[in-house]
Amino acid sequence: MTDTLTAFALSDEERARAHELYKAFHADPELSMQEHRTQERIEGVLDELGIEHFRCGGTGVVGLIRNGEGPVVGFRADTDGLPIEEATGLDYASTARGTLEDGTDVPVMHGCGHDTHITSLLTAVRVLLREKDRWAGTVVLIFQPGEETSAGARAMVDDGLWDKAPRPEVILGQHVWPGQAGTVSLTRGTAMAMADSLRVTVRGKQSHGSQPQNSIDPIVLASAMVQRLQTVVSRELSPLDSAVVTVGTFHAGLKENIIPDKAEFTLNIRSLTPEVRAQVLAAVQRIITGEAQVAGAPEPVVEKIYDFPANVNDDAATERVFTALRAGLGEANVEEMPPKMGSEDFGWLGEAIGVPTVYWFFGGYDAERLASGDVPVNHSPYFGPVIEPTLTTGTNAVLAGLLEWIGK
Amino acid sequence: MTDTLTAFALSDEERARAHELYKAFHADPELSMQEHRTQERIEGVLDELGIEHFRCGGTGVVGLIRNGEGPVVGFRADTDGLPIEEATGLDYASTARGTLEDGTDVPVMHGCGHDTHITSLLTAVRVLLREKDRWAGTVVLIFQPGEETSAGARAMVDDGLWDKAPRPEVILGQHVWPGQAGTVSLTRGTAMAMADSLRVTVRGKQSHGSQPQNSIDPIVLASAMVQRLQTVVSRELSPLDSAVVTVGTFHAGLKENIIPDKAEFTLNIRSLTPEVRAQVLAAVQRIITGEAQVAGAPEPVVEKIYDFPANVNDDAATERVFTALRAGLGEANVEEMPPKMGSEDFGWLGEAIGVPTVYWFFGGYDAERLASGDVPVNHSPYFGPVIEPTLTTGTNAVLAGLLEWIGK
Amino acid sequence: MTDTLTAFALSDEERARAHELYKAFHADPELSMQEHRTQERIEGVLDELGIEHFRCGGTGVVGLIRNGEGPVVGFRADTDGLPIEEATGLDYASTARGTLEDGTDVPVMHGCGHDTHITSLLTAVRVLLREKDRWAGTVVLIFQPGEETSAGARAMVDDGLWDKAPRPEVILGQHVWPGQAGTVSLTRGTAMAMADSLRVTVRGKQSHGSQPQNSIDPIVLASAMVQRLQTVVSRELSPLDSAVVTVGTFHAGLKENIIPDKAEFTLNIRSLTPEVRAQVLAAVQRIITGEAQVAGAPEPVVEKIYDFPANVNDDAATERVFTALRAGLGEANVEEMPPKMGSEDFGWLGEAIGVPTVYWFFGGYDAERLASGDVPVNHSPYFGPVIEPTLTTGTNAVLAGLLEWIGK
Amino acid sequence: MTDTLTAFALSDEERARAHELYKAFHADPELSMQEHRTQERIEGVLDELGIEHFRCGGTGVVGLIRNGEGPVVGFRADTDGLPIEEATGLDYASTARGTLEDGTDVPVMHGCGHDTHITSLLTAVRVLLREKDRWAGTVVLIFQPGEETSAGARAMVDDGLWDKAPRPEVILGQHVWPGQAGTVSLTRGTAMAMADSLRVTVRGKQSHGSQPQNSIDPIVLASAMVQRLQTVVSRELSPLDSAVVTVGTFHAGLKENIIPDKAEFTLNIRSLTPEVRAQVLAAVQRIITGEAQVAGAPEPVVEKIYDFPANVNDDAATERVFTALRAGLGEANVEEMPPKMGSEDFGWLGEAIGVPTVYWFFGGYDAERLASGDVPVNHSPYFGPVIEPTLTTGTNAVLAGLLEWIGK
Repeated sequence: MTDTLTAFALSDEERARAHELYKAFHADPELSMQEHRTQERIEGVLDELGIEHFRCGGTGVVGLIRNGEGPVVGFRADTDGLPIEEATGLDYASTARGTLEDGTDVPVMHGCGHDTHITSLLTAVRVLLREKDRWAGTVVLIFQPGEETSAGARAMVDDGLWDKAPRPEVILGQHVWPGQAGTVSLTRGTAMAMADSLRVTVRGKQSHGSQPQNSIDPIVLASAMVQRLQTVVSRELSPLDSAVVTVGTFHAGLKENIIPDKAEFTLNIRSLTPEVRAQVLAAVQRIITGEAQVAGAPEPVVEKIYDFPANVNDDAATERVFTALRAGLGEANVEEMPPKMGSEDFGWLGEAIGVPTVYWFFGGYDAERLASGDVPVNHSPYFGPVIEPTLTTGTNAVLAGLLEWIGK
Repeated sequence: MTDTLTAFALSDEERARAHELYKAFHADPELSMQEHRTQERIEGVLDELGIEHFRCGGTGVVGLIRNGEGPVVGFRADTDGLPIEEATGLDYASTARGTLEDGTDVPVMHGCGHDTHITSLLTAVRVLLREKDRWAGTVVLIFQPGEETSAGARAMVDDGLWDKAPRPEVILGQHVWPGQAGTVSLTRGTAMAMADSLRVTVRGKQSHGSQPQNSIDPIVLASAMVQRLQTVVSRELSPLDSAVVTVGTFHAGLKENIIPDKAEFTLNIRSLTPEVRAQVLAAVQRIITGEAQVAGAPEPVVEKIYDFPANVNDDAATERVFTALRAGLGEANVEEMPPKMGSEDFGWLGEAIGVPTVYWFFGGYDAERLASGDVPVNHSPYFGPVIEPTLTTGTNAVLAGLLEWIGK
Repeated sequence: MTDTLTAFALSDEERARAHELYKAFHADPELSMQEHRTQERIEGVLDELGIEHFRCGGTGVVGLIRNGEGPVVGFRADTDGLPIEEATGLDYASTARGTLEDGTDVPVMHGCGHDTHITSLLTAVRVLLREKDRWAGTVVLIFQPGEETSAGARAMVDDGLWDKAPRPEVILGQHVWPGQAGTVSLTRGTAMAMADSLRVTVRGKQSHGSQPQNSIDPIVLASAMVQRLQTVVSRELSPLDSAVVTVGTFHAGLKENIIPDKAEFTLNIRSLTPEVRAQVLAAVQRIITGEAQVAGAPEPVVEKIYDFPANVNDDAATERVFTALRAGLGEANVEEMPPKMGSEDFGWLGEAIGVPTVYWFFGGYDAERLASGDVPVNHSPYFGPVIEPTLTTGTNAVLAGLLEWIGK
Repeated sequence: MTDTLTAFALSDEERARAHELYKAFHADPELSMQEHRTQERIEGVLDELGIEHFRCGGTGVVGLIRNGEGPVVGFRADTDGLPIEEATGLDYASTARGTLEDGTDVPVMHGCGHDTHITSLLTAVRVLLREKDRWAGTVVLIFQPGEETSAGARAMVDDGLWDKAPRPEVILGQHVWPGQAGTVSLTRGTAMAMADSLRVTVRGKQSHGSQPQNSIDPIVLASAMVQRLQTVVSRELSPLDSAVVTVGTFHAGLKENIIPDKAEFTLNIRSLTPEVRAQVLAAVQRIITGEAQVAGAPEPVVEKIYDFPANVNDDAATERVFTALRAGLGEANVEEMPPKMGSEDFGWLGEAIGVPTVYWFFGGYDAERLASGDVPVNHSPYFGPVIEPTLTTGTNAVLAGLLEWIGK
C-alpha cells in the first residue's frame, strides 16, 4: 500500500478478524437466493459496527454509512456459493449442502470466491469507520445475493433498492480471479460479456429402436442442431466480433433401444455488444426452428433461463478508478486487461437508475502457484485463493476506489 | 379351432381359469431377473397340476411333462415385465413397482405381453394333461426370466438347463403382437434381428462455457458422432441389406454454462446376418474412434451392454409348424411374415445345444381396434391385448405346435 | 443348349457372323439418342434378312417378323454407348468420340455391353428365319436408343411405337452382367430399382473469403444438406425397405478466397416400390428446403434430370420364362436372383400399353476371371465380356424366351 | 490540403495528367505476374520524368529518386488486375483479357483499384520532382506485380530488390477502399490478416451410384470435413481472437449416378497473430486427417497454394504517419481503424530486411454513394472509385507520408 492510503492500512488485528470472517464465510456457503445464514452473518458484523442496514431482494443486505456531507458511492459484494463439491483440502473447506430448485440435495462451495468479496467489503468498512475523519459522504454497501443465476441484482432493484437507499454517483464492484495476488486488473469499456441462457426442448416422435421409420428421432435432430449452431460463430459473425455459443447440456432418452420423443439441451450465449447479441439470438432461433422443419418435427420449445447484462465500465469513472488504484496499490500492481467473455449481473444495479459502474478483478494466487501451471479457475472444485495478500489487496482496492470519491 | 384339435379345445372352465391367471400375472409384473412372485405363481400352478419342476437361471422355472415314449419337445414362455407405468386403464392394470440396478424405484408393467405367453403355455399344459392319451413323449416347459435384457436365456443355459432337462428335438416359442387376435404369423428363415447395445463414453475437457478454447467440447464431438453414424446405414451397407443404428440415449452436462468433460450415449444396433453385424460394429467403432481424433480428444470408451442373437427359424421345422398351425387354427388364420428388426434371446436356448428352434407371433387386437389406427405397440404404456380370442389362440398355437411332434 | 432347342442351335457360320457383328458394334459406339451409325448398321442386317422395319423415337429401329397366325411377342435390345474412354486393350476396342449436350467432345465406349444385346437379338432373328416352320406368330424387334439417359423407351412410345407395331402379349428384354458366361439370372417381381435424378442449385450470397459475415455460405449449406440427406435412408425408411440417396456431383466456387453465391449438386435416388420412392423424394425435398431456411438462404432450385421406372417382372410371364430358360439352357445355368438397385427404362415399353414384361441377365465372364476377383463391372472402362459363351448364351436366351410364346 | 503541404499541392495540369494516366491504366489491366504493358507504361512515365529505374521480379519496376543527403524511404504501389469482367459501365472500363495458368482465357479488370495506387505514386513523384528544393534524401519507388497471388513481393525480394536498391528506413504503402473519398484510415499494430490457402484432395473409392456399399463416398466425407471445420473458429479459438476458415471451392463428380473417387476443396484461412495461425493450421490438418480415418478413406492430400504475411504497422513509424497524414489531409480526414481480415503481401518487402512498414487505406466513394447503400467493394465487377477527390487524396497521402521522413 502506498503513502496515500497509509492511514487506511489494515492493522494486524483487523487483518486477523478478516481472516476469521473469511474462513467462516468459506466454510458455510449457500446456494443462490438461499443465502440466509450468510445474510445473518453479514448483519451481525454490521450490527457490531453500528451500521444502519436493511434486507433487500430476499437474502440481500444493504448497509448505509452516513458520514456527513459528501458524495454518495455504492459498493457491491455478491454473496452466493455454487453447487460444487469442494476439493481444495483446506482446513476451512465447505461441507455445506443445499437443495436445488428441483429438490436435489447437493454439496455447496464458495467456488467463485464471493467470500473474498464479502470479507473485503466488510473489512474496508471497519477501516472506514476507524478513519471517519479522513473522508465524508455516504457509502451504500450492497451485499447482493444470487449473482450466479443473474437473479440477485434484479431482485434487489425490484425490491426497491434505489427507493430505500440514496442514489450514488457511481457504483463499484470487484471479483477475485486467478491472477497474481496483490494485483488488480481493469478493463476500459465493456469488461464482461452479456450472457443469455436458453433451454431448447426438441420434440420428435417415439418409437422402438428397431423402427426408426416410425420415429422422428430427436437425438439425431438435436445433434444436427448442435452442429449447425457452430456456424453462427464461424460464418455469421465478423471475425472481429466476439461471441460464444455453448451447448452446456444435452439430455435425451432413457433406454438404448427406445428412440425417445424429445431431447433437451441448454445454450449459453456470450456477446460483447447488443448488435452481436441480437444477431446471435436470431441466428440460434432460426437454426433451431429450421432444423426441426428439416426433420419434419414439431416446432421446438425455446425458453429463456436467464440473461446477464453487459458489464460496462464507464469511461470517465474508469479513468478515476485507474488513478486511484495505481495510487493506492502501486503502479506495478494495476494492469489494463481486455474484456472477458464471462458474465455478471452487477450491471443491472447501475442501469436501473442510470448510474455509471466500474468493476475490476483482483488476483488470488501467488507467483509460485501461477508459475506451476496448476491454477484452478473460478468454479473449479479446487479453486482456493491464498488468504494473503488476496484479502488485504481486496480490502485496499475497495478503499482506494471509494476514497477516490469520498476521500478528503 | 379346426377338427384336428377338437379334442384339445378349451372348456369354458379352462378358459375361465386362463383369464383369471392372466389377470393375476398382468396385475403383478416384475422386472427382468427379479421375477420372484411370478416364479412362485408358476410353480403354484405346476404343483396344482402335479408337474415335476425345478428352478433354473435364478428366477426361471423348468417343468417336465413325461408322458411315455415319444419325442422330446421344448416350449418357452418368457416371464419378465418392463419399467413402464401402465396407462391402459384396465381393471387389472398393474400398480407394481420395482427397483432398477442403479437403485431407482420405477413402476412396472407387462408392457410386452409376456403374461399372455405364460398363461397360454400353462393353459396348454392343463389341456395336455387332460388329454394324455392322445399324445406321447416329453414336453420341456421353459419359463424363462429376463428376456428384455437378454440375460435370461443365457442364465438358464449357464445354470445347466440342458444338463437337468432332456434334450429336445425342437424348441418352440411365441410372442403376442399388434396383429389381429385369432391369427398367427410365421417367418421363414431369420425371424428377428440380432441386436447389440453399446455404451459410449466420449471424453472431452471441461471448461467454463465462455471459454471454449480451453475445452474439448464433448457435446459437439458426440453430436458429430451421431451425425456420422448415419452413414453406416446410408453409405456403407448394401441397400438390399437391413440394419439399424439407433442412438437411444445421449446425456451430457449439468449446467448450461459449463462445457462438461464427457458425454455418454448408448447405441442399439440391429442386423439380420452375421456379416452385416460385423460390418456395422466395425464401422461404428471406426467412426467413434476417428471422430475423437478429429476433435483431438482422448479415445472414447465403448462398452458392450448386451447382445441378442438372431432368432432363426429352422427350415424343416418351420414347414412342420406352418402345417400344424394351419391345420390347428385354420388356413386363413396363419400368414407368412417378413423378418422383424426386433430381437429376442430365445435363440440362445437352441444354439447352446444345436437344436432347431421355431418362433411365431400371435395377434392381440380385434379388427375394430386395428381399423381405428389406435394400436399401441409392445412396450407402449397403452399396450393391452384383448383377452379373447388372444389367449385361446395363444393356447391353441402352443398345442398345435407341440402336437406336431408329440401328437398321435 | 438342351434338346428342346436343338434345331435352333447356332451353326458355326451363324456364330462367326455374330462375332463379326459384335466387334463392329463394339468398335463404333455412339452416345444416347445419337445412335445414327448403329441405327443404319441394324437396318442393314434387317434388310439383308428381308425383315420389315421402321424408324421410331429418333434413332430407334423396330423390326417385324410376321410368320403366320400366332402370338405376338416383343423383344427389346438397347443400343447406346457411354461417355467413357475404353481401357480394355481389346483388338476391337472403341476409339469413337461423341459430343455431349453441352458441346463437350468425349470418348465413347460400349461400357454397358449393349452391343451384346443388339448382336444376340439380331443373331436370334437369323435363326428364327432359318427355322420358320418350327414357330408361328409375330415378333416385334425393338432396337431402343437412349437407355442410359432414360430417354429412349419414352421416345419410342411417344413416337407411336404401339400405333405402328402390333401389340404383343409380352415384351422380353435382357442385359449382360458380370456373372458367369453361360448362365442367366432372373428375378421374381421387381427386378430393378426406380431411379430419380435431381439437380439442386443451392443459392447463397457471395462475399470475400475474409468476410463470412457478409455471405450466406452455399458450400457450408450444401455440405449440411449432404449430411442430413443421409438420415433419409438411416432413419426415415424401414430397415427392411431398400433405397439409395447418392450425391454424385458437388460443384461450387471458382477461387479459394471468394465465398461463392451458389453451389450445385446432383442426386441419384433409387427405390424398389412407389411408396418408398414417394417417401424418399418428399424427404429429400423437405431436407433441402429446410436446410436453406436454417441458413437464411433463398429457396434452392430442385430440378428433375430424369427418372427411370421400376423394372417389374410379371408374375405369370416370369414363371413361363423360368421354365423356358431352364429347358433351353439347362437347369444348372438358370438362377433366381434378388432385385438389383440398378435401373432401366425397359419398363416404359410395357407400362405404356399395360403389357407384361420380363427381363433377365446373362453372364459375361468366364469362371477363371470371376475367381480372380478382377471383375470390371458395367460402366467400367475395363468392362469387356468374353465373346463366348456370352453371345451364344445371349442368343439362346432370346430364342428360349420367344419360343415359350411362339414355338410350336 | 493543409498549409504544410501547400507547396506540394497538385496543379490543374498535374491533376489532368493524373486522370489521363489513371484511365489508361484502368482500361488496360493485366493478370498477376503478367503486367507487361503496365510495366512499360510505368517505365514510360519514369523515363519522361528522368528517373532512374530497373526491372525487378519479372514485371516489377523499381524507380530511384536521389535528391541529396537525407533519409531513404520506400513507397510501394501494386500493379496487377483480376480475372473479373468489369461491369461498371465506365467510359474507360476494361475490355482486356488474359490467360490463366491453366490456359483459360478470361476478362481482366482493375477490380481491386491498384490503378489508383500506381497513378497516385507516379503523380506524387511528379510533384516531388517539381519541389526538389523542399526535401532531401532518396525515395525508392516500388511498383510491385502479383499482389493478388502473394507472388510479387517475394519475387522482387528474391530477384535482389534490396541488393539493387538502397535500404530504406521505412517502407510505406496504401490501398483504395470503399471509404469516403478524401479520407484515409490507419490501423495501429496488425493492419491486415495473415492468409493461408490450401488445396485438399479427398480420396475415396468410386462406385456406381446404386452401390454405395462398394464406395468410400468422397462427397459425404468432404461435406463432413466442411462441417467439422466450422468448429475451429466456433470452439477451438478464444472468442477474443479473430480467424476465418473459408472453404471457397468444392468440386467433385462428373455424373449424378456415379460416386466419384475424389473430391477437391480449397481453404482460405485468415488470422491476425502467428499463434492463432499455427493453432488454426494444426486444427485444420487434424480435422482433415481424422475425418478420412472416420470414413476409412486414404489420407487426403493437403497442399499449400500460397500464403500472405501479416501486414503489421510498426508502432513508432505509425505514430509519425498519423501525425503526417493529419497535418497533410486535415485532422477530420484521418481516422483510426480496427484491423481488417483481408490480406496483403506488402509485409514481405520490409520483413525481408527487417525494415518497418506502414500501410493505410484511402477512400474511393463520395458521401452520396456511401449513403445510398450501393457500395461495391473491392473485387466486385462494379468496383469503381470516383476519380476525385480519390486521386488527389491518394497523391497527397503519398506526399505526406514520404515528407514525414524526407521533408525539410
